[in-house]
Amino acid sequence: MLTVNAIAAVSATEPLVRTTVERRDLGPHDVLIEIAYAGICHSDIHTVRGEWGKVPYPLTVGHEIVGHVTEVGAEVTKHAAGDRVGVGCMVNSCRECDNCTAGQEQYCLNGNTGTYAAVDRDGTVTQGGYSTHVVVDQDFVLRVPTSIPLEAAAPLLCAGITTYSPLAHWNAGPGKNVAVVGMGGLGHMGVKIAVALGAEVTVLSQTLSKKADGEAFGAQHYYATSDPATFTTLKNSFDLIINTVSAPIDMSAYLGLLRLDGTFVSVGAPPEPLPVQVFSLFNNRRSFAGSSIGGIAETQEMLDFCAERGIAPEVEVIDAGAVNEAYERVLKSDVRYRFVIDIDTLR
Amino acid sequence: MLTVNAIAAVSATEPLVRTTVERRDLGPHDVLIEIAYAGICHSDIHTVRGEWGKVPYPLTVGHEIVGHVTEVGAEVTKHAAGDRVGVGCMVNSCRECDNCTAGQEQYCLNGNTGTYAAVDRDGTVTQGGYSTHVVVDQDFVLRVPTSIPLEAAAPLLCAGITTYSPLAHWNAGPGKNVAVVGMGGLGHMGVKIAVALGAEVTVLSQTLSKKADGEAFGAQHYYATSDPATFTTLKNSFDLIINTVSAPIDMSAYLGLLRLDGTFVSVGAPPEPLPVQVFSLFNNRRSFAGSSIGGIAETQEMLDFCAERGIAPEVEVIDAGAVNEAYERVLKSDVRYRFVIDIDTLR
Repeated sequence: MLTVNAIAAVSATEPLVRTTVERRDLGPHDVLIEIAYAGICHSDIHTVRGEWGKVPYPLTVGHEIVGHVTEVGAEVTKHAAGDRVGVGCMVNSCRECDNCTAGQEQYCLNGNTGTYAAVDRDGTVTQGGYSTHVVVDQDFVLRVPTSIPLEAAAPLLCAGITTYSPLAHWNAGPGKNVAVVGMGGLGHMGVKIAVALGAEVTVLSQTLSKKADGEAFGAQHYYATSDPATFTTLKNSFDLIINTVSAPIDMSAYLGLLRLDGTFVSVGAPPEPLPVQVFSLFNNRRSFAGSSIGGIAETQEMLDFCAERGIAPEVEVIDAGAVNEAYERVLKSDVRYRFVIDIDTLR
Repeated sequence: MLTVNAIAAVSATEPLVRTTVERRDLGPHDVLIEIAYAGICHSDIHTVRGEWGKVPYPLTVGHEIVGHVTEVGAEVTKHAAGDRVGVGCMVNSCRECDNCTAGQEQYCLNGNTGTYAAVDRDGTVTQGGYSTHVVVDQDFVLRVPTSIPLEAAAPLLCAGITTYSPLAHWNAGPGKNVAVVGMGGLGHMGVKIAVALGAEVTVLSQTLSKKADGEAFGAQHYYATSDPATFTTLKNSFDLIINTVSAPIDMSAYLGLLRLDGTFVSVGAPPEPLPVQVFSLFNNRRSFAGSSIGGIAETQEMLDFCAERGIAPEVEVIDAGAVNEAYERVLKSDVRYRFVIDIDTLR
């Protein structure tokens, strides 16, 4: 057992504190990773504050993890000491169900094992990446191409794959009119990836405050959703809308923006159900879909794609001591566009 | 102007009455049809009772129309006197928008012209098929293959195409697991068509009262939705679910039945919005879609497909005088499976 420095939540209401977590001894298929950076995802905050269900405190969150391999188990073939690697939102799955065998481990029918707050196949509770080291099965460890700066690679493991997967699945590309709702951590990556895939990209953000950024990321159009005219101007326009916003939205208004056979894909979700007027799906044979992160092979594909196209998240690197303050800023949308913890400050 | 016998609603609450309606003089592209049979669709009842909005009384409904051509306009090339023909839910569209030019006139961006209660391109209000004759532009008139009995062909024009279109669009066929929700006029055609397309078909009906029929139509499985066990037994099972029921349903329960990349398609809809728990779309990357009738070319394809495969609706032919009683029976689901008015009794 390895005891390593970490930051943990001890209750839903108290600030995160410095502590230690234990990492299992290396199994034959395990990889020990010295973490360099860990991204702060809004999900981390929802989780530690108990907004998504009961939490096994003390809990270390973080599922945008990058670093270097320092040791590998006896039968590890995919990674070696010194490799630049990453870990995303899951660290295991059953590997036997139809979805796992189809390479869609994120939809494991027996439940994938989340990187934190999940009960792993060995019965222990998983602890996330706000920590100096982590032990992960080689099959859930990604290769991080050298051309991506390590701190910028971290958010690709959640924000990157969560937007890449639906964009790729629903064929965003040349000739396709794609909208991204929300210009936060996920949204800004959705814009960069959709642009790189060759789609015509529109940002739908609450205000125009980030318009210059959206255009710098390659978006051709930028509209404020606080302006009702947006929903008449853009009626019947999009083949695909990726919604990165978790707050409740007026589904009829957004569905009305889809053209023939268009799909509205939520990657964020409010805890309460959204009322959907079925008649608004009839017009243009529209679809309302959900998408959750991506499979392991697809996550590697996304990392390689981002390396090849030279795209990466915009990050603000912070010290471990600034995490609580960063949480407050995330809640106020006061970050462009992702906080990443420099884990060296935790050693 | 041609004045012809018809049955019309005079208010939301009174029984339908015998009356006459006027048909326009034949334009150069028009076809005059002597109607033989008209199907009774649940939509007719919703409409005349004002449940779907304001109604221009007196109104003749009916959008499952079959008969023979008796006269054609000077420039008509597609049909000739004596032809067996049909008319479905629409009689015109703009013909210029992206959807019309793509052969998806049902999704005309300027609004297709419904067969009844719509304002046609010439400013008159359209009157439906509970009538001895109708005048329709040749482009919205279908050829009814001789192998389909005329009375059985009528419901294909709405119930047939409404289920065929989503089954074909979402690739129901060999290796696909398809469920049809509801065993009414639409549902029973959905079952027959899905079976003919080669899919493995499950009926999800409120009770097992029509199980023998479902199996006779070719369904391999039949479950009662009133039994909660159905929703655990069939979890993660279907590639496609066609919902023909207009009553509000528990969307999370039904979405839970979809396997990876499965789609739940509503062709019926309650007037009130359905609450959708977005998390139930995340699992298995599910979609919730709508579908409305079909395009003209696709409707012809459906008629030819049904003729070729020897499938047709189950109908109960009634006299024109029995329409009000038939409406009451439709509302009690007391029909196997579609009432068709013998229009000869209206002459």
